[in-house]
Amino acid sequence: MRTDGRKFDELRPIHIEKDYVKHPEGSVFITVGDTKVICNASIEERVPPFMRGGGKGWITAEYSMLPRATATRNIRESSKGKVSGRTMEIQRLIGRALRAVVDLESMGERTIWIDCDVIQADGGTRTASITGAFVAMAIAMAKLYTEKELKKFPITDYLAATSVGVLENHGAILDLNYIEDSQAEVDMNVVMTGSNEFVELQGTGEEATFSNKQLQELLMLAEKGISQLIQIQKEVLGEIANQITAKS
Amino acid sequence: MRTDGRKFDELRPIHIEKDYVKHPEGSVFITVGDTKVICNASIEERVPPFMRGGGKGWITAEYSMLPRATATRNIRESSKGKVSGRTMEIQRLIGRALRAVVDLESMGERTIWIDCDVIQADGGTRTASITGAFVAMAIAMAKLYTEKELKKFPITDYLAATSVGVLENHGAILDLNYIEDSQAEVDMNVVMTGSNEFVELQGTGEEATFSNKQLQELLMLAEKGISQLIQIQKEVLGEIANQITAKS
Amino acid sequence: MRTDGRKFDELRPIHIEKDYVKHPEGSVFITVGDTKVICNASIEERVPPFMRGGGKGWITAEYSMLPRATATRNIRESSKGKVSGRTMEIQRLIGRALRAVVDLESMGERTIWIDCDVIQADGGTRTASITGAFVAMAIAMAKLYTEKELKKFPITDYLAATSVGVLENHGAILDLNYIEDSQAEVDMNVVMTGSNEFVELQGTGEEATFSNKQLQELLMLAEKGISQLIQIQKEVLGEIANQITAKS
Amino acid sequence: MRTDGRKFDELRPIHIEKDYVKHPEGSVFITVGDTKVICNASIEERVPPFMRGGGKGWITAEYSMLPRATATRNIRESSKGKVSGRTMEIQRLIGRALRAVVDLESMGERTIWIDCDVIQADGGTRTASITGAFVAMAIAMAKLYTEKELKKFPITDYLAATSVGVLENHGAILDLNYIEDSQAEVDMNVVMTGSNEFVELQGTGEEATFSNKQLQELLMLAEKGISQLIQIQKEVLGEIANQITAKS
Amino acid sequence: MRTDGRKFDELRPIHIEKDYVKHPEGSVFITVGDTKVICNASIEERVPPFMRGGGKGWITAEYSMLPRATATRNIRESSKGKVSGRTMEIQRLIGRALRAVVDLESMGERTIWIDCDVIQADGGTRTASITGAFVAMAIAMAKLYTEKELKKFPITDYLAATSVGVLENHGAILDLNYIEDSQAEVDMNVVMTGSNEFVELQGTGEEATFSNKQLQELLMLAEKGISQLIQIQKEVLGEIANQITAKS
Amino acid sequence: MRTDGRKFDELRPIHIEKDYVKHPEGSVFITVGDTKVICNASIEERVPPFMRGGGKGWITAEYSMLPRATATRNIRESSKGKVSGRTMEIQRLIGRALRAVVDLESMGERTIWIDCDVIQADGGTRTASITGAFVAMAIAMAKLYTEKELKKFPITDYLAATSVGVLENHGAILDLNYIEDSQAEVDMNVVMTGSNEFVELQGTGEEATFSNKQLQELLMLAEKGISQLIQIQKEVLGEIANQITAKS
Repeated sequence: MRTDGRKFDELRPIHIEKDYVKHPEGSVFITVGDTKVICNASIEERVPPFMRGGGKGWITAEYSMLPRATATRNIRESSKGKVSGRTMEIQRLIGRALRAVVDLESMGERTIWIDCDVIQADGGTRTASITGAFVAMAIAMAKLYTEKELKKFPITDYLAATSVGVLENHGAILDLNYIEDSQAEVDMNVVMTGSNEFVELQGTGEEATFSNKQLQELLMLAEKGISQLIQIQKEVLGEIANQITAKS
Repeated sequence: MRTDGRKFDELRPIHIEKDYVKHPEGSVFITVGDTKVICNASIEERVPPFMRGGGKGWITAEYSMLPRATATRNIRESSKGKVSGRTMEIQRLIGRALRAVVDLESMGERTIWIDCDVIQADGGTRTASITGAFVAMAIAMAKLYTEKELKKFPITDYLAATSVGVLENHGAILDLNYIEDSQAEVDMNVVMTGSNEFVELQGTGEEATFSNKQLQELLMLAEKGISQLIQIQKEVLGEIANQITAKS
Repeated sequence: MRTDGRKFDELRPIHIEKDYVKHPEGSVFITVGDTKVICNASIEERVPPFMRGGGKGWITAEYSMLPRATATRNIRESSKGKVSGRTMEIQRLIGRALRAVVDLESMGERTIWIDCDVIQADGGTRTASITGAFVAMAIAMAKLYTEKELKKFPITDYLAATSVGVLENHGAILDLNYIEDSQAEVDMNVVMTGSNEFVELQGTGEEATFSNKQLQELLMLAEKGISQLIQIQKEVLGEIANQITAKS
Repeated sequence: MRTDGRKFDELRPIHIEKDYVKHPEGSVFITVGDTKVICNASIEERVPPFMRGGGKGWITAEYSMLPRATATRNIRESSKGKVSGRTMEIQRLIGRALRAVVDLESMGERTIWIDCDVIQADGGTRTASITGAFVAMAIAMAKLYTEKELKKFPITDYLAATSVGVLENHGAILDLNYIEDSQAEVDMNVVMTGSNEFVELQGTGEEATFSNKQLQELLMLAEKGISQLIQIQKEVLGEIANQITAKS
Repeated sequence: MRTDGRKFDELRPIHIEKDYVKHPEGSVFITVGDTKVICNASIEERVPPFMRGGGKGWITAEYSMLPRATATRNIRESSKGKVSGRTMEIQRLIGRALRAVVDLESMGERTIWIDCDVIQADGGTRTASITGAFVAMAIAMAKLYTEKELKKFPITDYLAATSVGVLENHGAILDLNYIEDSQAEVDMNVVMTGSNEFVELQGTGEEATFSNKQLQELLMLAEKGISQLIQIQKEVLGEIANQITAKS
Repeated sequence: MRTDGRKFDELRPIHIEKDYVKHPEGSVFITVGDTKVICNASIEERVPPFMRGGGKGWITAEYSMLPRATATRNIRESSKGKVSGRTMEIQRLIGRALRAVVDLESMGERTIWIDCDVIQADGGTRTASITGAFVAMAIAMAKLYTEKELKKFPITDYLAATSVGVLENHGAILDLNYIEDSQAEVDMNVVMTGSNEFVELQGTGEEATFSNKQLQELLMLAEKGISQLIQIQKEVLGEIANQITAKS
């Protein structure tokens, strides 16, 4: 039995609220247990300098936590004047993951900016960000597709993420909360598509190591959890979901 | 008639939700029309270096907007590596205003950090921040007062803020939304106490000037609005409100 | 009686020296008691990117203190690598105030940079900066007007600033020096035009509050002081003064 | 056949030169094909503030490339005034990987700083850095062990890293050079111990995805390459190698 | 004949005004032709961390130009967020030069901060800064000597600086103004003591070279100019001058 | 006798290895005793903004030390977020020195970036950098000259640098190592051409002074050392050396 009563292969309660902030082209508020993240998608009608003239679009992400999303207050990165290594790692991961299910050419030369702002943190903020950001991006893409008459809907598959880990005395578990995460010997973030393919796999022994057998157990848990997450994404997206299904 | 149908002396709908984020000692989500701000109060058991050993507490504030709180996306200040002049001005204002109604000596040598994070902006973000921050601070102070057996409740009066302005063809109006704010000839932020005293007054002619007579009209509107805001604060604070009334 | 022997409604001795530095288009050295500020106005033949093509000019200001303008040495902002919130607040104020009396369209697409460098500080550096900067700007504008045959002289009114405040046991006083400023319960900076209209009003209770009645006393003192400052500006400007009078 | 004539499961020529720079406690120059990295290990007799008094040591790493390690010159991060996300990601990875095979308690309260400076880059700089850094760290630890009479040799196992990837028309390959890396559909960095356990696994579909079957092929290649790397480390370490073998 | 009518071995008019700013322990305003610099000396009762406990004092300098000290406006280094290489070079030079004529041990563990702020520039700002800074430092030292009863007056000799250079068609000249400086083939800054010894010599061929014979001509001019500067320093210092003479 | 057994006028062993890194247009590894520096020259087909359209080329340099090039580890300048004054001074010196022997017009509008990265430091890193950088630049120029058919070879003379100094009890010595440098009373860096002309002369009394007589002794030593360095450069450059000889 886990500290919050879940079974080893059980996700925390998930809720995705659409159209949370009024200004962005896509905006969702995702809740994964006590982890809460606002994911906004903004369309900019140009690409970064290094891509201009190439006929392709771009997806990029930024991630931040409110100073008091956590048990003790963190100093704002704007006050420190620089972004931490952890933040950079996460925002690079989010952008890279989303680009794996987007046909950048059918987007045209525009950028989608994904902003993931963590309001409250209880473990798994980067995977919740990816799962929510996919929905925000899909909403923004649907707006573009309708308004601009893109020839193709640019999203080629679903995408969601979760964490899995190994806990002493528990073995492999799915969707770690903060306490579990801080005690885990192995911690792995998995990003998968609706076709059960990997997009990103980041496994780390926390002052520990892990075997190939353990890896396989973890990946099976992750696959199970991500299927459920994608099911929820489909329900939230409604009509838009059909565009993605048609594609893949 | 104003663009959103309000009368010249009418506030937008106000809502203050307590205990919005679970970690901070005080946390509220304030809604003023379409302006939405999370105000968190964190207690730190020490004061800044320049105050150590003085036996007094300190209140300081930080303010930020999500990049897509506004119609077009703003670059994050953490990415730019520096905080803008506007942000600095606002966070200095919030801290100064709150300190005016706190007996810093009865707080003991601790700091209350106020974080105001604007989720959605439609004008008046700094005054909504002050109004919400007061409630978050009062909740945090009440927690301290109960747990730590402070001899006195350190908040000496209520505090709320609103904006007033002069609009061509409309004259003086209360609580400007974004469109009104961007068209106003005169723009004034007023911070007042529950005793109808001023704490802060910042009036600016936007490439325009204003007379003492106009000033008086604006101040009367502000006083009216702030009384209503304080009434809402009292209702939200419930029991805690009695501590402040007892004091003043 | 005040510490320096002045009456409650008495300005410190004012001196404005024209053409202090040889390179700028306008340059004055203003002395307000022991507060001494060099105000330079530089003309740049373009406007900031966000204004290009709009046919309007721009006025912007920068403010700095020599490290030893004050009793104890301050670390240079260039060494710290960032500009403090106080500096930003002041330079935004100076720019905004000056723009209120300039017809930006008749300036053409050019920028006037105002540099206020405090050589010695004894309270009131921001108001002395505004009063001096107005003169430096007027000299630079006159140079432009003569050389470039602008159709209209772009300055529409005089502009000066002073501080007023409430001192325990003294009540309202005009033009606070450093000691008075550090003891004041209420501190207000007032910027007014030659037509006795307000441009900017910034009143702050320093861990205190103030009533509307006190506000009125302060504003009357400010009006008196600013009239005298504008009289001195007229004398210093000589010929140029006529251009402004003709306008307003 | 690969561009440089290697077989799909063949490492590039590896050379590790000990005692390359004279000042550091451990220093090696590692060559992996045309990738050349100086790895220095420096002992500091204290730990970062957050660890003080905990009785444990710390391993941290910094990574940098000479501006002209690559085909076109990169701007120095010192000139840009900030470290890129990529650099941060790599230095966090190196530190984390090394800590997995160190018993931090037996180190005592001291820090080992690992500096990996890439002199010439041809793909795989982060994995070459880890493989070289392990040797530099072992040399520094041996120095400590001898001089300070630590009760236990703190390194618990060998550690090396390599990259594997999937190349269109080639399938899975081992130890990608720059050209292969830039064309790979899947790119994975694997860090393993002498006991064939994983420490870190970072797999990324580059605008592509990968299946569990492909993952298994990649991991088998990685395991083969890392065994060979660890064999070379043992030869270079000579006497010191016995300490590690004794431990694990 | 030079552009300003001087002979090849003639200094520009020099003026040194004592006690220019009221707060610093030593303050002078030095004028060398149209070059005008405020030199302030501040005493701090501690030394930098790396010197603590060593029983010696320290002299350090900072240098800055007002944005409009020059013909076109320079961006403030505080706005750019970093100090230029030129500024760093100059402030290191000023500090190093002054330390050469101070017995750091007799100062005790305190720092003298020298601030050289260029109000108006017309060539030779760094040498004017050194010449003025010496006087400001001497005044501050005299204050310390009187008040604190130091056993020895810590300044061991006079110190002044000038520039010399080679101008096409003119040969070697003394004390270059801005136009001469920008045309010079060789540019040399010389810092010397009252005993005609060198403290610092920085000669640069500006996309040109120079011979030992030219060097000797330049050094003779420099020696002549510096003797005259030191004579002026003595007159300005009055009584204090005796302390230095007594020492050396 | 000096600590390392050299005579007062003896250089340390010098070695210059060509084509050290494969990517740059010119690359050498220079060893001066235990001081080791990689000097890379990169050609960029444009000049800095302030030079565009002028038809001239530019040479600029950057200098850095590996953190553990020295006995104790230095914090990386990229981590500190700024370049030190010492680094700026050195890189400005290197660039200026090289430009003195280049006919910038015959280079065309391109920039040569010189990167000097100190792998191991034992005194004289800036002079070793200049001596090595000259060779790297000559190789890059030769590549340009061959490939691009420049009409003239743009290097007009040889250039090398060394340090000289005065050591108590030793008098003047040539080519100081770290220990000598830290004990020297006078420290002078001299940059000279193949025609025995000075390009740069930087002499500093380290809390000491020096006479013209001492200066002459130092310059004679420097001249001797630089002749030997240029002889080595000629040997290393081989064929390319003829181009320079032909020019001067």
